[in-house]
Amino acid sequence: MEKLKKYLPVKDEDQFYHEGAVELLVFNFLLILTILTIWLFKNHRFRFLHETGGAMLYGLVMGLIIRYSTKASDVESGTVYECEKLKSGPSTLLINITNQVYEYQYKREISHHNVNGHHSNAMLQKMTFDPSIFFNILLPPIIFHAGYSLKKRHFFRNLGSILTYAFLGTAISCIVIGLIMYGFVKAMVHIGQLKGWEFHFTDCLFFGSLMSATDPVTVLAIFHELHVDADLYALLFGESVLNDAVAIVLTYSISIYSPKENPNTFDAAAFFQSVGNFLGIFAGSFAMGSSYAVHLTKFTKLCEFPMLETGLFFLLSWSAFLSAEAAGLTGIVAVLFCGVTQAHYTYNNLSPDSKMRTKQLFEFMNFLAENVIFCYMGLALFTFQNHIFNPLFIFGAFVAVFVARACNIYPLSFLLNLGRKQKIPRNFQHMMMFSGLRGAIAFALAIQDTETQPKQMMFTTALLIVFFTVWVFGGGTTPMLTWLQIRVFIDPDEDLKAEAASQSASNLDKNTTKAESAWLFRIWYGFDHKYLKPILTHTGPPLTTTLPEWCNPVARFLTSPSAHGDQLKNNDTDYIINNDELTENYESSAHIPVPAQDRTSSTQATGMADIHEGDLGLGRYKLQLEHAAGQPELNSLA
Amino acid sequence: MEKLKKYLPVKDEDQFYHEGAVELLVFNFLLILTILTIWLFKNHRFRFLHETGGAMLYGLVMGLIIRYSTKASDVESGTVYECEKLKSGPSTLLINITNQVYEYQYKREISHHNVNGHHSNAMLQKMTFDPSIFFNILLPPIIFHAGYSLKKRHFFRNLGSILTYAFLGTAISCIVIGLIMYGFVKAMVHIGQLKGWEFHFTDCLFFGSLMSATDPVTVLAIFHELHVDADLYALLFGESVLNDAVAIVLTYSISIYSPKENPNTFDAAAFFQSVGNFLGIFAGSFAMGSSYAVHLTKFTKLCEFPMLETGLFFLLSWSAFLSAEAAGLTGIVAVLFCGVTQAHYTYNNLSPDSKMRTKQLFEFMNFLAENVIFCYMGLALFTFQNHIFNPLFIFGAFVAVFVARACNIYPLSFLLNLGRKQKIPRNFQHMMMFSGLRGAIAFALAIQDTETQPKQMMFTTALLIVFFTVWVFGGGTTPMLTWLQIRVFIDPDEDLKAEAASQSASNLDKNTTKAESAWLFRIWYGFDHKYLKPILTHTGPPLTTTLPEWCNPVARFLTSPSAHGDQLKNNDTDYIINNDELTENYESSAHIPVPAQDRTSSTQATGMADIHEGDLGLGRYKLQLEHAAGQPELNSLA
Repeated sequence: MEKLKKYLPVKDEDQFYHEGAVELLVFNFLLILTILTIWLFKNHRFRFLHETGGAMLYGLVMGLIIRYSTKASDVESGTVYECEKLKSGPSTLLINITNQVYEYQYKREISHHNVNGHHSNAMLQKMTFDPSIFFNILLPPIIFHAGYSLKKRHFFRNLGSILTYAFLGTAISCIVIGLIMYGFVKAMVHIGQLKGWEFHFTDCLFFGSLMSATDPVTVLAIFHELHVDADLYALLFGESVLNDAVAIVLTYSISIYSPKENPNTFDAAAFFQSVGNFLGIFAGSFAMGSSYAVHLTKFTKLCEFPMLETGLFFLLSWSAFLSAEAAGLTGIVAVLFCGVTQAHYTYNNLSPDSKMRTKQLFEFMNFLAENVIFCYMGLALFTFQNHIFNPLFIFGAFVAVFVARACNIYPLSFLLNLGRKQKIPRNFQHMMMFSGLRGAIAFALAIQDTETQPKQMMFTTALLIVFFTVWVFGGGTTPMLTWLQIRVFIDPDEDLKAEAASQSASNLDKNTTKAESAWLFRIWYGFDHKYLKPILTHTGPPLTTTLPEWCNPVARFLTSPSAHGDQLKNNDTDYIINNDELTENYESSAHIPVPAQDRTSSTQATGMADIHEGDLGLGRYKLQLEHAAGQPELNSLA
Repeated sequence: MEKLKKYLPVKDEDQFYHEGAVELLVFNFLLILTILTIWLFKNHRFRFLHETGGAMLYGLVMGLIIRYSTKASDVESGTVYECEKLKSGPSTLLINITNQVYEYQYKREISHHNVNGHHSNAMLQKMTFDPSIFFNILLPPIIFHAGYSLKKRHFFRNLGSILTYAFLGTAISCIVIGLIMYGFVKAMVHIGQLKGWEFHFTDCLFFGSLMSATDPVTVLAIFHELHVDADLYALLFGESVLNDAVAIVLTYSISIYSPKENPNTFDAAAFFQSVGNFLGIFAGSFAMGSSYAVHLTKFTKLCEFPMLETGLFFLLSWSAFLSAEAAGLTGIVAVLFCGVTQAHYTYNNLSPDSKMRTKQLFEFMNFLAENVIFCYMGLALFTFQNHIFNPLFIFGAFVAVFVARACNIYPLSFLLNLGRKQKIPRNFQHMMMFSGLRGAIAFALAIQDTETQPKQMMFTTALLIVFFTVWVFGGGTTPMLTWLQIRVFIDPDEDLKAEAASQSASNLDKNTTKAESAWLFRIWYGFDHKYLKPILTHTGPPLTTTLPEWCNPVARFLTSPSAHGDQLKNNDTDYIINNDELTENYESSAHIPVPAQDRTSSTQATGMADIHEGDLGLGRYKLQLEHAAGQPELNSLA
């Protein structure tokens, strides 16, 4: 029982012909254009458009061109063949057509309402990636790179606040967006839109969770370039990185939340199962990711072969992702914590050459992947074929995102300030509120599933919010910094002077800076320094001195023979390589509590040094800027 | 008219589940294992197993495990659905099964005789890559890297010989293998094997062309490590790189050779069309590749942003590949010449930071891709499901490959020695004969098409030849070097002393070294130095001085403003960066002919320096070795 009609003929496939060549060329062309534009902008010090914004813009233009220059293929499309006897679709289908057997591979399920719009334009169809490419190829390097560049004293000093914003804040944001959207959906149903759609509260929560993933890459780039306060940078960066992980797992947990009866009623069992899922997946991915950041490199002398070392590093990080995926956990979260752990432990065991190689490699992969995603977003506005623009829903989403961000930042900052010694000032809070851009993660989460009409509407809306926030908020970062009077061009050295000055003036409570979440930080730091670092790296005191006496046999075993024998030598060489680690280590172990200013200064200096390392090669440029603009400002502060 | 049977059920696909995770993990695991083994071997100075050989070995073991540990799926496989009314297979198929529409994508055509063996084991099926992955993803970085590391004086000095071996030699090899195999095929038909097969002379030539691609990566790695004579290295490396390009285009030309009548008769028109195809595709790909190695970086100041520069460099190189593919040419050849040209021109315009970044990036990609391919080869011996082992054919192929290599190297060396001032000594010829390993390219060409039975037999045979040559010849390189008394550990400085000594002794004709293909080299070099370099890079004399007077306006335009203005400064900085370029330049332009020893010494030194740059980080190791083993030998020669 088949309706047979002539369809697209199979291309006489050339053995050597690369199918996607033209489409990939389009992307290459867009990226080259983006690079050249960004170079121009950087050279002229325009800061209103970041490379990701540029990539998006070019993608948009290219999408427009492709959409209106290619004509729809005139072959009748959407012919559905019926197979009533088949109970389920096979993963591979062999079909005999005119005495030749063709193999077909299962791609996906299609909703009936999408069948007609299907394949209306072959070129648009070709320019559409498989959504899983985002999660499996493009996001991992971005997320890993974020984790890998987290190695900053300031991050650990603000750990408590960052965790609060990332976990509690994302949950608040998700619920607030969900509630507001539910209100809008009810209103839309009331005025007669959404006829025949199924749109439950869980769908609204799903939208809330995917819209809660912030991605202030544009803002952070400008912060980096302008040397904005390191604490603000750490708060924002830390929040955005962890918040991605939380939002991804949250979205997943909500998508598998299935109350047994009416999906609109609250089912306590299903709810707690979802919470359990969330915790389980998060913890599992965390464990999987960290465990891969192995101390393998400690016991070997791979350092002599930087290429092998880099290869091993790359493969282990990728394995973390794949293992988590294979185990049914979230690869992205695993790769994030793998990155964090690698940066904290494995990095110390690498040879100087490999340190640079890995940094540059991941930086490069991050750069490419990020620009490809933003390019694709621009393209998707015109090439995606099932957009549903609903003005009311879009308006509602903008309101919801704005309100949710406010409900996240201000109340949490107020609560945190009760506990923090170094308060988060008002202007920092406004800046954080302003920096709630949405980007790659929200997009990737939204495009995962665009089968049903609500999901298509969500995708369209998410795309528009990304466009708006990246261009408007991203572009407005520099004016906003000026308007909020946030200090820029804070030079590590100058900062110290300023701090010393402020200490005497005592008009800022900067001198009580230090560890805000001091207790959390100190407990973790002590444990890390005494046990984890010696076990996992070549740094720190030998385990035989830190562990109790009766553990000596174990300690000797764990302290690798080479580290054991070369203890003295190691201390010397490590001191050169891990200067920051050791100074801190010895300071904290030798005289706790350290005089406030001393500690701040050393952490401040090393924190900035860390940031400098992740430099996109703006070295010279920065120097010019500092000479051109920074000096007078700093002088006025000193 | 359909035979409907229950088939593999479609997995309840988890939205976030990564399909290929387990399979990729297997590869990651194998690569990690390979890296660790190689590290062990390098540390203990075992040279009998190269990393590619190790990867192949582990792949083999893993293939064995997968093959015999996973049981064949018990679902009845090979069910073919008949669709008599469909005239051709659509590229996408929509099928309605139990009121749900599934989308299927066209994968490939299957020969009837393969239908039954199809899908007998889901795991084996999964471990099988799409053959196009080799040509589109894995080979380009390897080939580009080869081209990019070709920037060696010794290569250009031996250009004539290398081109002879690569073009004439590959053609000879192809024809000799084709003829011998045709004899064997005739014999097999005679004794009753190959019943019902179509096996024409063109098929034998096809096999000949794919088996003509040599890949002495193992040998070259050992040469590099042991500092074998730079001329021998250049001859072998140059031959293998260009020979890949020739073999790929040759294979393609033969595969589209279609005489109008009986495929066994010689059709002059079709033959000349094939030759035309070969020349056209080769020249087109060459032009496409070189034109992409743009002078774009000359007119910009991208140097200030190494990340953007590296990105641009990468994207342009990839675009060369994609453009060639999109234009119906051979991407691999384009990317090879893109690499050569980039190394020669664009490289000079890069900032020191980018030079290192690009080198390391491509080195890393090459390393990964190479090991993945060799790993896959190992796997393929057990996981590929349509092997046809025919002892007679395999024996014939071994004989043919051996004879063809001999017919390539010895006669051509004899002819070349008639023209060369510096003869290719006997032991070098034997070493080249010995180094005719087959590897990645032969494998990739063979796996492209495994539909018909002759092609499957060829694939199996090619695989076995690769195994044999890589393990046996690759492992025997060091003994062979000793046996042939080829000097190793030639230190640039020591080499000069030895040469000076030999000059007085005059028992070797090394002192007449210099440019062997002097006339070719000198014409090209003069043109390159006077016109191409100034146009494409910042080095060389200003165009205004080299071009005739009436060209001045054009010359001024082409000499970029910045290069024009900074002429003096540029000369200074370039002298530091491109020391080798300029010394040579000034020498050759100032006093031609140069005293023989002077020239040799400078080229020798820079040639070795170039080789050192591509170092896999063996620096320390090499030094130890030199002290341990090299010194006595060199002393005995001095």
